[in-house]
Amino acid sequence: MQGSHPKRVSPEDLRELYLAVRSYTEKLCEPLEIEDYVPQPVVDVSPPKWNIAHTTWFFEEMILKNFSQDYKVFDESFRFLFNSYYNSVGERTLRDHRGDLSRPTVKRIFEYRKYVDEKMYVFLDSDLAQDVRDLVILGLNHEQQHQELFLTDLKYIFGVNPLFPVYSNDFLPIEVTESEQGDFIEINGGTFDIGFDGGGFCFDNELALHKVFLNDFSICERLVSNREYTEFIEDGGYGDFRLWHSEGWDWVRQNGIEKPLYWHDLNGELVQYTYAGLGKIWPNAPVCHISFYEASAFAEWKGCRLPTEFEWEAASGRFRWGLRWEWTNSAYLPYPGFKKAAGAVGEYNGKFMINQMVLRGGSVVTPPGHSRKTYRNFFHPHLRWQFTGIRLAT
Amino acid sequence: MQGSHPKRVSPEDLRELYLAVRSYTEKLCEPLEIEDYVPQPVVDVSPPKWNIAHTTWFFEEMILKNFSQDYKVFDESFRFLFNSYYNSVGERTLRDHRGDLSRPTVKRIFEYRKYVDEKMYVFLDSDLAQDVRDLVILGLNHEQQHQELFLTDLKYIFGVNPLFPVYSNDFLPIEVTESEQGDFIEINGGTFDIGFDGGGFCFDNELALHKVFLNDFSICERLVSNREYTEFIEDGGYGDFRLWHSEGWDWVRQNGIEKPLYWHDLNGELVQYTYAGLGKIWPNAPVCHISFYEASAFAEWKGCRLPTEFEWEAASGRFRWGLRWEWTNSAYLPYPGFKKAAGAVGEYNGKFMINQMVLRGGSVVTPPGHSRKTYRNFFHPHLRWQFTGIRLAT
Amino acid sequence: MQGSHPKRVSPEDLRELYLAVRSYTEKLCEPLEIEDYVPQPVVDVSPPKWNIAHTTWFFEEMILKNFSQDYKVFDESFRFLFNSYYNSVGERTLRDHRGDLSRPTVKRIFEYRKYVDEKMYVFLDSDLAQDVRDLVILGLNHEQQHQELFLTDLKYIFGVNPLFPVYSNDFLPIEVTESEQGDFIEINGGTFDIGFDGGGFCFDNELALHKVFLNDFSICERLVSNREYTEFIEDGGYGDFRLWHSEGWDWVRQNGIEKPLYWHDLNGELVQYTYAGLGKIWPNAPVCHISFYEASAFAEWKGCRLPTEFEWEAASGRFRWGLRWEWTNSAYLPYPGFKKAAGAVGEYNGKFMINQMVLRGGSVVTPPGHSRKTYRNFFHPHLRWQFTGIRLAT
Amino acid sequence: MQGSHPKRVSPEDLRELYLAVRSYTEKLCEPLEIEDYVPQPVVDVSPPKWNIAHTTWFFEEMILKNFSQDYKVFDESFRFLFNSYYNSVGERTLRDHRGDLSRPTVKRIFEYRKYVDEKMYVFLDSDLAQDVRDLVILGLNHEQQHQELFLTDLKYIFGVNPLFPVYSNDFLPIEVTESEQGDFIEINGGTFDIGFDGGGFCFDNELALHKVFLNDFSICERLVSNREYTEFIEDGGYGDFRLWHSEGWDWVRQNGIEKPLYWHDLNGELVQYTYAGLGKIWPNAPVCHISFYEASAFAEWKGCRLPTEFEWEAASGRFRWGLRWEWTNSAYLPYPGFKKAAGAVGEYNGKFMINQMVLRGGSVVTPPGHSRKTYRNFFHPHLRWQFTGIRLAT
Repeated sequence: MQGSHPKRVSPEDLRELYLAVRSYTEKLCEPLEIEDYVPQPVVDVSPPKWNIAHTTWFFEEMILKNFSQDYKVFDESFRFLFNSYYNSVGERTLRDHRGDLSRPTVKRIFEYRKYVDEKMYVFLDSDLAQDVRDLVILGLNHEQQHQELFLTDLKYIFGVNPLFPVYSNDFLPIEVTESEQGDFIEINGGTFDIGFDGGGFCFDNELALHKVFLNDFSICERLVSNREYTEFIEDGGYGDFRLWHSEGWDWVRQNGIEKPLYWHDLNGELVQYTYAGLGKIWPNAPVCHISFYEASAFAEWKGCRLPTEFEWEAASGRFRWGLRWEWTNSAYLPYPGFKKAAGAVGEYNGKFMINQMVLRGGSVVTPPGHSRKTYRNFFHPHLRWQFTGIRLAT
Repeated sequence: MQGSHPKRVSPEDLRELYLAVRSYTEKLCEPLEIEDYVPQPVVDVSPPKWNIAHTTWFFEEMILKNFSQDYKVFDESFRFLFNSYYNSVGERTLRDHRGDLSRPTVKRIFEYRKYVDEKMYVFLDSDLAQDVRDLVILGLNHEQQHQELFLTDLKYIFGVNPLFPVYSNDFLPIEVTESEQGDFIEINGGTFDIGFDGGGFCFDNELALHKVFLNDFSICERLVSNREYTEFIEDGGYGDFRLWHSEGWDWVRQNGIEKPLYWHDLNGELVQYTYAGLGKIWPNAPVCHISFYEASAFAEWKGCRLPTEFEWEAASGRFRWGLRWEWTNSAYLPYPGFKKAAGAVGEYNGKFMINQMVLRGGSVVTPPGHSRKTYRNFFHPHLRWQFTGIRLAT
Repeated sequence: MQGSHPKRVSPEDLRELYLAVRSYTEKLCEPLEIEDYVPQPVVDVSPPKWNIAHTTWFFEEMILKNFSQDYKVFDESFRFLFNSYYNSVGERTLRDHRGDLSRPTVKRIFEYRKYVDEKMYVFLDSDLAQDVRDLVILGLNHEQQHQELFLTDLKYIFGVNPLFPVYSNDFLPIEVTESEQGDFIEINGGTFDIGFDGGGFCFDNELALHKVFLNDFSICERLVSNREYTEFIEDGGYGDFRLWHSEGWDWVRQNGIEKPLYWHDLNGELVQYTYAGLGKIWPNAPVCHISFYEASAFAEWKGCRLPTEFEWEAASGRFRWGLRWEWTNSAYLPYPGFKKAAGAVGEYNGKFMINQMVLRGGSVVTPPGHSRKTYRNFFHPHLRWQFTGIRLAT
Repeated sequence: MQGSHPKRVSPEDLRELYLAVRSYTEKLCEPLEIEDYVPQPVVDVSPPKWNIAHTTWFFEEMILKNFSQDYKVFDESFRFLFNSYYNSVGERTLRDHRGDLSRPTVKRIFEYRKYVDEKMYVFLDSDLAQDVRDLVILGLNHEQQHQELFLTDLKYIFGVNPLFPVYSNDFLPIEVTESEQGDFIEINGGTFDIGFDGGGFCFDNELALHKVFLNDFSICERLVSNREYTEFIEDGGYGDFRLWHSEGWDWVRQNGIEKPLYWHDLNGELVQYTYAGLGKIWPNAPVCHISFYEASAFAEWKGCRLPTEFEWEAASGRFRWGLRWEWTNSAYLPYPGFKKAAGAVGEYNGKFMINQMVLRGGSVVTPPGHSRKTYRNFFHPHLRWQFTGIRLAT
């Protein structure tokens, strides 16, 4: 799961990294009321308190219980309450019933975090084997992924509430940042190196480095803007089956989709929900919260297409990215030579390699430093609650 | 909706009654953590905070807004957030999405209660027409119904939580009270007066008083006990289609039903969840949390039947009741001459008169003084989260 | 299941009756193409070949196998293929998968009928005990019920086909017969005898004769016409929640219901599908193919109500009936003293006594002589494929 | 949709080809009873009569109506009755309601075929532009695809029938043909040409010829046998979540999957349904009727993997194929430069390029000469009614 030759991190640096990542999670919680930690409005959105507890559980279950002598678990019941998809680790609370659980309380979950953190600090001061240290780094990257989920899940919880609560005004500037000016750039075909090259941490799905042959292609320097997407809507894009995948068309009609998630028609004017509440749609900002189906239909309407993940990676040095996760036209599949790790951590990535599409880049709620050009994010093609956007290719 | 000739209640008594009922709701809330107010694990179970707010909403929407001059609403958005089934009163939050809403907070909902209560006390001190006073009494009876729902909904929320939290030890003695000794008593047939006779409050579905002809019948003085129900289980009652209604049999098989709700198999021993947590099943206590289908199958197994609601009412002076709501074999239908009230309160009862069965009596969580021998409770035949039991007839 | 003292039927008469009923089934089949025997477009509609085989199966399974010495079954597999709801008789083909079966062929099913009929004629010539003769009469009444189902199921199969095939012109005159002129008639209250009185055959659900007390009521001599129902539509009846049961309102909205089944909007004009194909709606004919929810909402709109089944029976001598099954506001429940027969025939009626409403009268496709004033038909409140109509009461 | 430079086919050859393909469809129908043409037991399985009519409809709708002067359509209603997914061509009968239609009859559908064939023969004798000729060839390849669907759909219809009818004994020898002996062969990595090279007909999804870089890999000369698959079952493969994709594991548990489709446990012995009826499982025959999930879990259990479609194509000259469609680990996505054709035929392939996996090879029911090494078949990962098998790679 981790890169084959991660750079050595000193004990002091590891401790500091642990502190930084764990503290950031707690900082994200500050604006919340206790009630906000509980709901699970749809199966894909976890209750915030579950996200908070689950990342702690990872350190307890994968590290302390296995490698810290005499470690005493905080609460035996948390083993299955905060397990996610790790079937190896006993029974788990069914994923669509996480929102039914009012207990343990938020207070108790923060006690749990504190307890595990204290044990971890002692543990990190001891002499650790490299593979254990790698596991700690994996745990911190795992926590960063859940920081992003925490934020997107919370946006969904607030976004379906008729009161449209404000979470924070801090994100607004970057949520509505204007797209760069930019044009299509030409890339000459040939054989490219794809995948992680071994310096520092990566997830197992980025391995191994391998060659991919690409034809000539061109890719746009900037993301599709709200203005362009509004033109698509006004041109009847949601009503023209020729632009859509067959399953995308079914999805549009069955769910009455006619605009991005979080866009609302308020007395005839389109507005959007952001972390700062209901507000105007900034025409120059990159369009956000769209499904793969919508991204693909828009590209078709524009006479373009979505890049493959390989094209994206090959060209990634030529444009700015990180404002929106960018749907590619690549299915999430293993790279040549992909091997699952033994044991529970082996469930991390491989088992999801079906029916999902790859997204590249990163978003305004991706923790700083978490993503990289070889990073492979993946979601089902109908999902929209992530900060997803469009980059065109031809 | 209310009885045609309710007894006059003095202004002082009405104010005292209002205080008593409203305070009791708040007393029920004392053991809760804030998180407990939020979940809605199934559509029939409302979040506790919704129950708390909805009863307040009734006084604001039905009384203060219509009859209190210059009343200023607490929050315009609460009109649709805490509306239940009253289609007359604008858009409402869909019943199965109440658990998605973390806001308004519990704190704000208690502020809402306080605000409305203060306005109500001033209002109750003014000179009120009789029909307005009747509406206040209706509102208090409505709140008592939601006190019972608050308790049964909370039991469900705690009962599906693997931690099986304790709510209170206060209910245990009555939850497990032994059934009276008792035998079948014979009732001679003839014409009986059924329905409310006009002294004090009643719901509109208890009207009008009318005659029903009954054959001779016998009815048991006591409720079916856990011991008897366990015999039914051990005799294979859940596996013998001949005992069941056709739709009951489908329900049993599709849901894998094999014991009452809240009964668990703990390492081979049957235990039950009560407000005091997981504990033993008291053999002499009346069986509880069973569906109409189960009640009916048990009666068939016993060579008996369930009484009709008319038999129950005619015989109700001859036995003790109030420990469990008792399923009858009567469908919930209007009495002769039933008339819906005009306006939103007309939605109270009549629109539910299809596909539900009548329960008579009352339960250990029915507020004291709320029920009476003419009271008609009603639920769909598969539901089990109320304190429902069995009285046999032949 | 049969009346306690059916009139003696002579052996000759029984044989003749058998011939008449069985031949009528085959006459109904004459206009069909082989393909028409196969589809099951919704779970409630059985494939015509299933209806044909199932009635034959009743005689084989309930009579010949039990009472005819040395009877050799036609095909062992038919035992579960053509069983309906008789759980006592082994595994059955799931009710919603009857339309999956192309085999046995129609030809083979008619051979089955011929084989069983030949055995039955020999059997009927032998000396039969009264209870066996009663069972034969039950089988014939059962076949008559399936003759009506055959016709209503076929109407559904043709009615959803965009080609709107013609079955027969023979039914048209009675499908569109004008309602009688008529007015409300007053019935004085008191105690009435309800249920079958013992002369001839009846189903077990019509027993026992018992007394019911009724208030004064009035009931209309004629059925509601298409003209009146069209006024209800034009007045916005389908859009006014106040007229509907809560579950009826959900049904209307979820299914987009806005007119009776088989009514179509053809270029702005309302037309209807009958056995004679698409045609005009006869304004004076009784409205047909409506659900209980619609019947009830119409009555509410008219300031009236539906009669109870007891009122209907008490008044049935005062008006003509038999053109439409008439929804009553009575739930399908057992009469006092109702007892299920032992064995498989005991499954005939009692197990359906939940969540269904009683219809009284008969329809244009009820076999002549099959119904009577005590006859209790029953369906779920949302179903519309029977010939159902409305008689008003107040 | 067709290859860029198809070989010229002479008018005589085209006419002969037309005759051969159309006649083969009719030959496949010979063993059927009329009833067999009607059912649609699941949405993916079309009624045989629909397959028969739909292929005819293609020639009428795409060719005769557009290019044959004065062509008079056989029946206007067939336009939407036998349209499949071609949204461009007006309203269509919803895909999951095809089995509801008893009319038009089988007889009429064969008259339709005869009518269109006669017009086509006249048309083929005229002087046709190359693109029209290409469209005829496309129609014939389309018909061949539906010949295979006809056979697999019929197998499903017979396979769910408790009578397990015999279709034909002709297929048995090839259904149970023994797998070749064989071992893994090593392929050296490098850049390979993938896709159709322009000689003759191909579908648009095989274009354009492009380069793919592959690492070294090895691939097995033979398919996985029933014997090996039985070992997987006996080793508990269906119960070990570690072998499965997350969605595959959900599929296994929700559907109670524990063996290939058409395998039955008959009194403790595993048997299979083939076109020749119920019979033994031939241990040396290649396993068949398994989903992608099962193929992938088996490969994982074996310590191998499925090949990509590119590996398969690159190595396809080194092994025999054509007995089973072989699941690859490639998602169905467009090749570089893929362009949809204008108009209705543009809906042929591109709109399905999401959520499906590629299968390569061909099967015992693929019409002779229809497949080729560049042919890309595709299905959703849970589907099993095609003749699907496993080839291992490492």
